[in-house]
Amino acid sequence: MASFSSATRVTTFTSTTDYCSRKAHRALQHVGPVQNISALFRTLSTTGIAITPRSSSSLLAAAMTTEASAKVIDGKSVAKEIRDEIDFEISRMKDSIGVVPGLAVILVGDRKDSATYVRNKKKSCESVGINSYEVRLSEDSSEQHVLEHISRFNDDPSVHGILVQLPLPPHMNEQNVLNAVCIEKDVDGFHPLNIGRLAMRDREPLFVPCTPKGCIELLHRYGVDIKGKRAVVIGRSNIVGMPAALLLQREDATVSIVHSRTKNPETITREADIIISAVGQPNMVKGSWIKPGSVVIDVGINPVEDAKSPRGYRLVGDVCYAEASKIASAITPVPGGVGPMTIAMLLSNTLISAKRVNNFM
Amino acid sequence: MASFSSATRVTTFTSTTDYCSRKAHRALQHVGPVQNISALFRTLSTTGIAITPRSSSSLLAAAMTTEASAKVIDGKSVAKEIRDEIDFEISRMKDSIGVVPGLAVILVGDRKDSATYVRNKKKSCESVGINSYEVRLSEDSSEQHVLEHISRFNDDPSVHGILVQLPLPPHMNEQNVLNAVCIEKDVDGFHPLNIGRLAMRDREPLFVPCTPKGCIELLHRYGVDIKGKRAVVIGRSNIVGMPAALLLQREDATVSIVHSRTKNPETITREADIIISAVGQPNMVKGSWIKPGSVVIDVGINPVEDAKSPRGYRLVGDVCYAEASKIASAITPVPGGVGPMTIAMLLSNTLISAKRVNNFM
Repeated sequence: MASFSSATRVTTFTSTTDYCSRKAHRALQHVGPVQNISALFRTLSTTGIAITPRSSSSLLAAAMTTEASAKVIDGKSVAKEIRDEIDFEISRMKDSIGVVPGLAVILVGDRKDSATYVRNKKKSCESVGINSYEVRLSEDSSEQHVLEHISRFNDDPSVHGILVQLPLPPHMNEQNVLNAVCIEKDVDGFHPLNIGRLAMRDREPLFVPCTPKGCIELLHRYGVDIKGKRAVVIGRSNIVGMPAALLLQREDATVSIVHSRTKNPETITREADIIISAVGQPNMVKGSWIKPGSVVIDVGINPVEDAKSPRGYRLVGDVCYAEASKIASAITPVPGGVGPMTIAMLLSNTLISAKRVNNFM
Repeated sequence: MASFSSATRVTTFTSTTDYCSRKAHRALQHVGPVQNISALFRTLSTTGIAITPRSSSSLLAAAMTTEASAKVIDGKSVAKEIRDEIDFEISRMKDSIGVVPGLAVILVGDRKDSATYVRNKKKSCESVGINSYEVRLSEDSSEQHVLEHISRFNDDPSVHGILVQLPLPPHMNEQNVLNAVCIEKDVDGFHPLNIGRLAMRDREPLFVPCTPKGCIELLHRYGVDIKGKRAVVIGRSNIVGMPAALLLQREDATVSIVHSRTKNPETITREADIIISAVGQPNMVKGSWIKPGSVVIDVGINPVEDAKSPRGYRLVGDVCYAEASKIASAITPVPGGVGPMTIAMLLSNTLISAKRVNNFM
């Protein structure tokens, strides 16, 4: 999640509405007014709103003043529900076979954001009864030293999941370090063997990466039909976009992946019944990019400057919420959408690992 | 390739043109005439053919009578070119370090088609100077016996690639057997670890599966630009469709995967600059599915009944060639398109393996 939540990249503008309008205006210029009018016309007419074609700006204004109608997909409450289920399962396992799942986290260096993530993970573990183990190493530790700790956790039967907090200091080879985690404890699900199994029919990954797993879980819990639907994933990162696309395909969606090299991405996203956006660009996905009635999952968590906020910034998604919530049938907010699901899925993967190794159903 | 070349599935009809027309007519009924007219109208007007909208049947007839204009992508001659390059490289390696690449094939049972494939692979190996090793086991051999042979080849430094001819007899676990081939000699590239690396950015697979590698090689050798293009892969098999989609994405195409659960696949394929079809359905992809000027790679090799042929059948692709060749800018024929590329890529992978293990550039 580092790339989507780094506090170092802060975009400057005054308010969301200003920003969306300005960006939408630019998008309009880019797409060309005729195309955009017809898109909006299609958009509004298929929602049952009777309109007659006018100028592009008056149409945009009409769309902007429509009341929000999308159902809010409440990741915070779903994550709470999942944590309660995990809590229950852990008690049941402890009572039955005396095993408690354990998660080990290795943190190298003094990055404040990394320390915060690790603290949150530890707190979440405690809240559901997962034992957490933590190793903190100084910035100048050797790669060998990290590998020794991984090896020790690999061999420790009370540890069922191992996380190496990223990013590592630049003198370490990230791939070497991550590959050292044995695949049975790779609760992040980033091992290429896991990704390969995720991509292949008739194969099962040991773990599904947490954030995309959280996105699909939200769709399931809100009763969103995936089979046979058109799905578009925006972004193709190893940790979110690509595995999200593979998961949607496993559920028989027809999937397209849109990325930085895609020309006119909005023509593709407008065809989608389901959009998952994971690019880390504040408010990139405009209302005009979205098909009426579609379901929008926004993975982006982008800090933007905000003088009114006590911290001087606030968090927004990849999707222009003010616009999209008037057109989509359901949408995740930022914050409070996908964010809380990621840690819940990490706890879920740790429980799965402990159950599997102990053959506990 | 088994699923695309099984001689057991023979479709009955009289001639390709009859078949395409009948199927196109059915597709027309399915899509609805208005949509189809507008698609054909778009199709013909963007090719520069001046037309006025008429009835759907007269438009279809107009499209059908246009002369073929697509460049034929000649897989047979490209495969020959590649085999010559491999031959040259093998001589250079032999002269420099005295190493000759070796490919081992394990064949279990008496299937005639499998025996033919193995014979062809052996012949191709000999033609470029690759040593071939063959083990033939009876249908009732034990899985353990097959595993022992794999283990022996894994340990043999003169063997750089190991192929287990599929399908195996039903009493064997295919996944167990394939997983036993060490990844450094998995020249088929089907190991989940290879597929995972193929899916991930900044990772490199040891081997790329032969048929999809052949498809991309054809695009490269014909100078087809992939970056930023819309690509649609029809079919999502582990051996062709899925890895083909991953390869196109690695080259910065915007990829969509169409499959048996996709509704109105033709609306998606019509957006594509590049189509790779790998479903094993004779003549499924009609002219009306294709955008004018697109490039079409047809992986299907489907036997259809043909009383005029001495064998009683002939081979056709997934794409209705008679129609598509009038609309696409380039297209592979069947046979003589992707088919010859698969074995060429197997030889290429075996050479890559021998070079890698000997650190020969």
